[in-house]
Amino acid sequence: MIVVMEPGASEEVIDQVIRRLREFGFDVHLSRGVERTVIGAIGEKTAEKIQQLEATPGVEKIVPILQPYKLAGKEFKSERSQIEVNGVVFGGTRVPVIAGPCAVESREQLLETARRVKEAGAALLRGGAYKPRTSPYSFQGLAEEGLKILAEAREETGLGIVTEVVNPRDVETVGRYADMFQIGARNMQNFSLLTEVGKTRVPVLLKRGLSATINEWLMAAEYIISAGNPNVILCERGIRTFETETRNTLDLSAVVAVHELSHLPVVVDPSHGTGKWKYVTDMAKAAVAAGADGLIVEVHPRPEEALSDGPQSLRPEVFQRMMESVDTVARAVGRYVLG
Amino acid sequence: MIVVMEPGASEEVIDQVIRRLREFGFDVHLSRGVERTVIGAIGEKTAEKIQQLEATPGVEKIVPILQPYKLAGKEFKSERSQIEVNGVVFGGTRVPVIAGPCAVESREQLLETARRVKEAGAALLRGGAYKPRTSPYSFQGLAEEGLKILAEAREETGLGIVTEVVNPRDVETVGRYADMFQIGARNMQNFSLLTEVGKTRVPVLLKRGLSATINEWLMAAEYIISAGNPNVILCERGIRTFETETRNTLDLSAVVAVHELSHLPVVVDPSHGTGKWKYVTDMAKAAVAAGADGLIVEVHPRPEEALSDGPQSLRPEVFQRMMESVDTVARAVGRYVLG
Amino acid sequence: MIVVMEPGASEEVIDQVIRRLREFGFDVHLSRGVERTVIGAIGEKTAEKIQQLEATPGVEKIVPILQPYKLAGKEFKSERSQIEVNGVVFGGTRVPVIAGPCAVESREQLLETARRVKEAGAALLRGGAYKPRTSPYSFQGLAEEGLKILAEAREETGLGIVTEVVNPRDVETVGRYADMFQIGARNMQNFSLLTEVGKTRVPVLLKRGLSATINEWLMAAEYIISAGNPNVILCERGIRTFETETRNTLDLSAVVAVHELSHLPVVVDPSHGTGKWKYVTDMAKAAVAAGADGLIVEVHPRPEEALSDGPQSLRPEVFQRMMESVDTVARAVGRYVLG
Amino acid sequence: MIVVMEPGASEEVIDQVIRRLREFGFDVHLSRGVERTVIGAIGEKTAEKIQQLEATPGVEKIVPILQPYKLAGKEFKSERSQIEVNGVVFGGTRVPVIAGPCAVESREQLLETARRVKEAGAALLRGGAYKPRTSPYSFQGLAEEGLKILAEAREETGLGIVTEVVNPRDVETVGRYADMFQIGARNMQNFSLLTEVGKTRVPVLLKRGLSATINEWLMAAEYIISAGNPNVILCERGIRTFETETRNTLDLSAVVAVHELSHLPVVVDPSHGTGKWKYVTDMAKAAVAAGADGLIVEVHPRPEEALSDGPQSLRPEVFQRMMESVDTVARAVGRYVLG
Repeated sequence: MIVVMEPGASEEVIDQVIRRLREFGFDVHLSRGVERTVIGAIGEKTAEKIQQLEATPGVEKIVPILQPYKLAGKEFKSERSQIEVNGVVFGGTRVPVIAGPCAVESREQLLETARRVKEAGAALLRGGAYKPRTSPYSFQGLAEEGLKILAEAREETGLGIVTEVVNPRDVETVGRYADMFQIGARNMQNFSLLTEVGKTRVPVLLKRGLSATINEWLMAAEYIISAGNPNVILCERGIRTFETETRNTLDLSAVVAVHELSHLPVVVDPSHGTGKWKYVTDMAKAAVAAGADGLIVEVHPRPEEALSDGPQSLRPEVFQRMMESVDTVARAVGRYVLG
Repeated sequence: MIVVMEPGASEEVIDQVIRRLREFGFDVHLSRGVERTVIGAIGEKTAEKIQQLEATPGVEKIVPILQPYKLAGKEFKSERSQIEVNGVVFGGTRVPVIAGPCAVESREQLLETARRVKEAGAALLRGGAYKPRTSPYSFQGLAEEGLKILAEAREETGLGIVTEVVNPRDVETVGRYADMFQIGARNMQNFSLLTEVGKTRVPVLLKRGLSATINEWLMAAEYIISAGNPNVILCERGIRTFETETRNTLDLSAVVAVHELSHLPVVVDPSHGTGKWKYVTDMAKAAVAAGADGLIVEVHPRPEEALSDGPQSLRPEVFQRMMESVDTVARAVGRYVLG
Repeated sequence: MIVVMEPGASEEVIDQVIRRLREFGFDVHLSRGVERTVIGAIGEKTAEKIQQLEATPGVEKIVPILQPYKLAGKEFKSERSQIEVNGVVFGGTRVPVIAGPCAVESREQLLETARRVKEAGAALLRGGAYKPRTSPYSFQGLAEEGLKILAEAREETGLGIVTEVVNPRDVETVGRYADMFQIGARNMQNFSLLTEVGKTRVPVLLKRGLSATINEWLMAAEYIISAGNPNVILCERGIRTFETETRNTLDLSAVVAVHELSHLPVVVDPSHGTGKWKYVTDMAKAAVAAGADGLIVEVHPRPEEALSDGPQSLRPEVFQRMMESVDTVARAVGRYVLG
Repeated sequence: MIVVMEPGASEEVIDQVIRRLREFGFDVHLSRGVERTVIGAIGEKTAEKIQQLEATPGVEKIVPILQPYKLAGKEFKSERSQIEVNGVVFGGTRVPVIAGPCAVESREQLLETARRVKEAGAALLRGGAYKPRTSPYSFQGLAEEGLKILAEAREETGLGIVTEVVNPRDVETVGRYADMFQIGARNMQNFSLLTEVGKTRVPVLLKRGLSATINEWLMAAEYIISAGNPNVILCERGIRTFETETRNTLDLSAVVAVHELSHLPVVVDPSHGTGKWKYVTDMAKAAVAAGADGLIVEVHPRPEEALSDGPQSLRPEVFQRMMESVDTVARAVGRYVLG
């Protein structure tokens, strides 16, 4: 890292900073410019050391050179990780599509959706049993009852199950049913929850927080991996910006950036990313063209009766057409969606 | 609420929507414009009904008229709530200042800080025992050991204690020590945690999320209040924007807006809001001039040795000068800081 | 539009507002809810009337129902506009690619680039002669000298020319050379400039402002069209967000949204959108998959010697590979890039 | 500046970069870490050199150490600049308040407002004759006719005049009437306009762009100063964020940051900053408490008839009360508003 001294820092102050850097175990290189003295510090840096140095008198700022993540980074592992979920591989040539309703509302609704998305070529089934909702007066999910319905759908269709966990206390219960945990955007920095799913071996779909930088997102992945679970799949689902025409701004360049910085696969959620079902198909095609390793899409047999996210849910027949057109784009970039 | 129909919606489609609105229990008023038909719907709306209507064929969009929060809103209660924490009242003429280190690092560090901030006129002591940190490799706090040190500081100085809780599982433990729970910005929409602190009677300092709208923030307060705990104090601590000169952008107009929309008191955190100790005093003065009902400020005896947030922590002597100048501003707006 | 009255507005105040609405020529529909009275107003609204009503005592807010743009909107014209630039059509099956350096630096640099991008299949040549630069100490362009070099390149290669105009005073001069004006992001709301290019018939490439909503962008197009020039092509080039890994956040959902709201073609600029040449090809493919009607890409024979935007410029051989892979994606969505 | 090499950059590549740095006239310091080689480069850097180096093979990124502005920076001049406008000084102990309507609508409206704000203690009169409006169908101002009305108001009241210029072509005309030019937020990076007002000696009120960083804002000031006009006063007027409760997010920490980085005075505009007249007084008080060197406030005798910005305009009697309370706060921080 680079320590930039304040203009006019005295020799004594510079010496103190150098002494401190050496105590911290850094090799030190001094450069004196006309207006600033900067000190290169080579060695193992930590967030503590950086903040302490930054708070040291005479120091203007610290410029880190290396990324703070290690296990999630491409320097740790250069080829794309392949992560298997109930026999489906993310990070390979196939681009698996996870589909299903926002929330499990009833046995009928879920089974009908499961059959329809299976027919259309979905690889995994999504459905929330525990729902984080902005309003305490909204439907909060069926809890374990919902998980049982999901298990029944898996039994019938063979589709593995992706479902959200919101409370560290529920990790064990959800883990008995889920083939992949989903960590929602609002929980991306719920570190207790990350650590808890990190203690399992169940794959984790880690959604990007609404205002999380790519760097913070990879640090959240680092929490899970460093706790022992290397099976992390990232999910771009739109970030919060000033634009109100779409629910969020789907940041597809994040897919490209993650592929540059990390070995983890990235999935894209065009449903939350746009908030409007009419926009989903085009953005799904764009995601795959940008190199996404998977998609997660909300599908509901009757969106006008959905207990959540109806406006962004596809009807099964629209989903089927989406799958076909996305497959065509996938093949244009050397991958495929429909087997 | 207002239902805006798509251009060219047929009579049949309009009739269906009206029928649906009546089934939902709404009174219906129809207005036919040249380019759009809009339907006024009067009655009890819920998030579900809104989304279902929005997903109904022929509907272009729904425009809600009323705010979604009830118990947190000014229409529920028009005068400012006064909330007492260990004998200190928020929402009255005094502007209490909460001060202390980001994290409890040791008995010595905390007790020294407690004495110094008490001397300078602080009303409550802050200090984290459970720390949510961006990196898994950073200091994560002393856990219950830290809570015991906080309790010792209260015993010695008489200052009530404000400390963060990050895991629903820890609410009981933390609640045995804390005079006020702090819910951090990253947990503002951790609904399991909100519900859990809502089951207690301990006051809650609810920080605004990094990218939370004022509306979402009040809905998070609604979670706590509707679970049974009316003792919620809001805390503006800066939002995430494109600006990088400051760590966050401290949104003081949120203080004014909350006072317009809600009866809950609002506290301001200029330390996280700016990320730079040099900016803290001026922004503390501005916060009080804008009408803030309290301040929360990070103070550390030796910021260059702090295990977290050193760059934004005030030394005790700087904190003391801050208190004096903030008191002068408070008196200019009819309030006071120093008794 | 909908006028929402304050809670507790008296009959007298409501009557005054209704009288005012009638004076403005609106048909009025009154709905009295339990907590609010809302008034539907049907008729020609203007920005003035809206603001005046909003400032009227007793009025809480105004909710507009219709979009403020007319000539740029889909309700004015439902099929996609086809706009011709030097024989190249935007808005049809072909997806034309505009390529060239950020700035015209010299005759040699421009002619070499023109030949190379022509060979690779570019449809038009870009190059700035007047450069808006963040720093007054940066290269500001060759002015008319640069325009002459562009004209020479057109003569030699047959490629039409797209070049930026930044000053209303230069519209005439630039118009003598350009086949299409470019209005840069920083000038999207330079209304004097918009009006000036609106008085010509030269097609205009209107870049989206760094923090412009889609609505404001379409209003900027409305300025040009209402001044008499219907030949507007929009260009999404990334918006400003909190993310710093990319120079801007390329908002591809804006392509889909514009196609939903407007008849104007939309071009995407993955060079400014990402700021990194390594990200350009993947985002170009994504843009075309999302439905973009064209691309604009920075190409420089030796980026390490470029006087501006080197880090985001493709070398000609990389550009050629990009064209091939983008063509494959275009064909997967029923369009083509290479003839 | 610091040149960070890519991991695994070969000796040859490193040597080439060092050779290039020396050609550019830099002194070079090499530090080899385990994972990265970084090169300190001391000397005169320009935006061109930085971009060219960044585009050089083997270079991962460039980290600048010094700020890019010179004449606007505190290292150029350490004490606050005092800038005089028609006898009123900005940057001293007095906090002058500029007040008046958004737009000059008529002789009566302007003269009435001028008398009222003068009575209440305003130091200068604002009023737009050329209005940049989002919609081409909105009132665009009275042009030179408006300037004449402003001049008449100055004659009658003695208040100096602050008025916006939007077109480089109008700088001469506006300059014949104005005591201070206003450059609006949308024109902050209209470099032709900045250069043009930089050629005069008339003071310039430079509003911060909606999404401009503080750094870009100071660079815009640098354009004016480097063109020959040192009389620049900055104006914070709110930035664009995701929050919709306020029209913009007024960033008062920008006042503190500018005072840290630059010698230029900073004025705050709470009218545009909030968009709601009810929020103006509290935010004006907060601005002064944060250290603002002036305020600019919209006042209209009858906001419900204003042709623009009615919802954020104060009635004269409210303005007068604001002035009194702001003066009290100013005195609490060692300054004053009312003489």
